[in-house]
Amino acid sequence: MARFALTIEYDGGPFVGWQRQANGMSIQQRLEEAVAAIDGHERVVHGAGRTDAGVHALGLVAHVDLSRAWRVDRLRDAINAHLWPDPIAVLSIRAVGDDFEARFSAKMRHYRYLIFNRRAPPALARGRVWHVKRVLDAEAMHRAAQTLVGKFDFSTYRASECQARSPIRTLDRLDVRRMDDEIEIFASAPSFLHHQVRSLVGSLEHVGSGKWPLEEPRRALEARDRARCGQVAPPQGLYLVAVDY
Amino acid sequence: MARFALTIEYDGGPFVGWQRQANGMSIQQRLEEAVAAIDGHERVVHGAGRTDAGVHALGLVAHVDLSRAWRVDRLRDAINAHLWPDPIAVLSIRAVGDDFEARFSAKMRHYRYLIFNRRAPPALARGRVWHVKRVLDAEAMHRAAQTLVGKFDFSTYRASECQARSPIRTLDRLDVRRMDDEIEIFASAPSFLHHQVRSLVGSLEHVGSGKWPLEEPRRALEARDRARCGQVAPPQGLYLVAVDY
Repeated sequence: MARFALTIEYDGGPFVGWQRQANGMSIQQRLEEAVAAIDGHERVVHGAGRTDAGVHALGLVAHVDLSRAWRVDRLRDAINAHLWPDPIAVLSIRAVGDDFEARFSAKMRHYRYLIFNRRAPPALARGRVWHVKRVLDAEAMHRAAQTLVGKFDFSTYRASECQARSPIRTLDRLDVRRMDDEIEIFASAPSFLHHQVRSLVGSLEHVGSGKWPLEEPRRALEARDRARCGQVAPPQGLYLVAVDY
Repeated sequence: MARFALTIEYDGGPFVGWQRQANGMSIQQRLEEAVAAIDGHERVVHGAGRTDAGVHALGLVAHVDLSRAWRVDRLRDAINAHLWPDPIAVLSIRAVGDDFEARFSAKMRHYRYLIFNRRAPPALARGRVWHVKRVLDAEAMHRAAQTLVGKFDFSTYRASECQARSPIRTLDRLDVRRMDDEIEIFASAPSFLHHQVRSLVGSLEHVGSGKWPLEEPRRALEARDRARCGQVAPPQGLYLVAVDY
């Protein structure tokens, strides 16, 4: 057996999410089908994390064990040929040792969230952004975000169905910046709780719109109470950008 | 009657092009339907130019005459409500005089073309770029492009069905630059011939791939022979960015 790490890009729109599920097509299932067509065996493709339905990836990393030592460029092209025309693409593949685990070996995960902040709805960015019509104060959002960086109990910003054993996480980066009509939010951490980024972004949006004072996201954090989360931002604005090992 | 100039963004993918046609839905027809629903009368929406099926716009300008003097922000929101969920959005509207003609008053048109230059197919940019797998030399393309800037007979780079009376055009800008895996080509001119940008891009791609020497696009121009055009780049990489008045 030979283990490979795949870096994968996808449009989450048409899928039920990363994880294989009975109720529809997942990114994991499509990858496993493509790998089985090439390798001749059913193989589990292990992702670094799960993305929800509608969430996109620019560089999700997954590992898979194959019967033989492929040349990585040929393997990438072969898998992509089998994925076509679904909007999933393997960007690169590298051979890794048996001790490499896409999920457990990951040292840092990087997400980006895009808010489209103008009156007119997005035409070209449809399904790729959260459309917020009222003008948001990105600087206030950034200042509020800095009060959430560090090691905390993130129970407030965690889905009620989150299965992680501990709500303690270390948020290394939460930056907000405006680029014309788009507000980009960058979040980096060794690992995230379920819906953590979208819960943080939804609450920061309340600061940007003036509904919440700048101090409220931190006060809500300290309350460790899911009911204090402002709102959960929709999935289509979220991108898993990269995983570091 | 009151005349308004509309700045419009659209995803050209689902449409037969800007111009109203019998064989499918056009951007012009959808706009005219939205305007009729608001104004109560059938109105022609006059575009600054026609875009082909699959070509996108970030800022096409069109004018229309309405029965009354709307507040422009309310008019924009009302039209956008009627366009939903089609991927067409009116970004802004301004009141203009009766002498304003979207097509004839235009002083400069700006296009951008996106080549996606990597092995793996685009997942998120599907339908928004021309996917070219072989590595292109963007610097060589840029140098070749500079030999095409100026006032010339562009018969080589003009669709055989082009209806313009003269093949003479003044190309003010044709810049090529690489941004990671994307090659952006910017073209500006007072007006363009049919398929001119896509014909120029297709020929520059031959320079980038090494199929053509750097001098060939200019020699082909001077031949004034459509058969010398390298190839016509596909529509989905082309964006009408802005129109100056």
